[in-house]
Amino acid sequence: MNGKLGDSVKALVFDVFGTVVDWRGSIIRELEAFGRAKGIAADWAGFADAWRGGYQPAMQRVRSGELPWTRIDDLHRMILDRLLAEYRLAGIGEADRDHLNRAWHRLDPWPDAVAGLARLKRRFIIGTLSNGNMALLVDMAKHAGLPWDVVLSAELARHYKPDPEAYRLPPDLLGLSASEVMLVAAHPSDLAAASREGLKTGYVPRPLERGPGKPPDDISGRHFDLVAEDFIQLAERLGA
Amino acid sequence: MNGKLGDSVKALVFDVFGTVVDWRGSIIRELEAFGRAKGIAADWAGFADAWRGGYQPAMQRVRSGELPWTRIDDLHRMILDRLLAEYRLAGIGEADRDHLNRAWHRLDPWPDAVAGLARLKRRFIIGTLSNGNMALLVDMAKHAGLPWDVVLSAELARHYKPDPEAYRLPPDLLGLSASEVMLVAAHPSDLAAASREGLKTGYVPRPLERGPGKPPDDISGRHFDLVAEDFIQLAERLGA
Repeated sequence: MNGKLGDSVKALVFDVFGTVVDWRGSIIRELEAFGRAKGIAADWAGFADAWRGGYQPAMQRVRSGELPWTRIDDLHRMILDRLLAEYRLAGIGEADRDHLNRAWHRLDPWPDAVAGLARLKRRFIIGTLSNGNMALLVDMAKHAGLPWDVVLSAELARHYKPDPEAYRLPPDLLGLSASEVMLVAAHPSDLAAASREGLKTGYVPRPLERGPGKPPDDISGRHFDLVAEDFIQLAERLGA
Repeated sequence: MNGKLGDSVKALVFDVFGTVVDWRGSIIRELEAFGRAKGIAADWAGFADAWRGGYQPAMQRVRSGELPWTRIDDLHRMILDRLLAEYRLAGIGEADRDHLNRAWHRLDPWPDAVAGLARLKRRFIIGTLSNGNMALLVDMAKHAGLPWDVVLSAELARHYKPDPEAYRLPPDLLGLSASEVMLVAAHPSDLAAASREGLKTGYVPRPLERGPGKPPDDISGRHFDLVAEDFIQLAERLGA
């Protein structure tokens, strides 16, 4: 069946934060380096988790219409400014804030990601389908060596996942039917929303996304077209 | 001055048809192969020129509002259907028409294009800014090995070049100022329109675009930020 799936699927689009890149480890490293350079001691892991923790609520303000369309770069910055105040670091200036905010453009890939994508690219169109904005995704691809054929962002639909408009974007822009496109993600809720729009689903759990010792996502009652441990196994299972 | 230009420019976006790929040679080869396979003799070079000749008038119908937003794939198909009737080839069926129309997804690059782009990619964000639709550009990149960091199309602005909205797309989506983006094109009119929106301009004439023995474009009175013979020289002049 998986060989058959590899024949019917033409394009793989990837969730990025957590699925392709290790946002938590990368952001903690950036914050720690910043702290060392500035002589600031703080709970940087907690800061990273709080920064990411502000992400879904901020997007929800956009989805609900409370905020007009706002890019992730700007949402990240709003959260950062609030956290710096909470951490009593309000004296940090504009250039440093901008540098910190752009840490999200410099996230590092999971160890299997680049090799797996290179292999998948030989057989499939590979692209992003991320809530990250285009500039962030393009910068990240250059930083991390991610060999995308196409960078697609919720920004192009002006709707954040899991709004259905975001999942309609890849088949529409690639000239494919929904069932010829597979979303690959580490997040069951993202995959469920993609499936409702007719996309195929590939689940690649990333148990370390939120740090060591966290319980895995509950996937009882979930259906995925494919499950793989990492992108190398994903390529194998799709015949790439 | 060019070294300085290489420092201030962050992204190069390329016109594609004629600038990166040899549409005429490629389309003639595809039509000739089709004719041989089907036992049809025709003036395939004339057919290719007439097909391309229908392109600007078809886009003008979209620009003027006579047609709603229509992708290049669909404009190419409208012109193809008309030409097949004119060439008394109306018996050609749907599958063959679709195959022929997708020849525009399989255009071959100029000999310097892939090597020049690979070199430019080391220093700059490189992308397309084409009137071709996204699916066409993504398929072409895979066919021709064009190593784009980002595929941008007039389709995303729903305005064909030279409408100003098309040129505003790359700075907007890449998070850059207009003057940090250079349009590279073989067509002075495209570059003039980009310049009016504040983009830098790189002129790479492609004297064989319309076939051998054609007079070069008149560039008297035109200003370009950079002129290069091909993408290798373009990379040299930009310090890449």
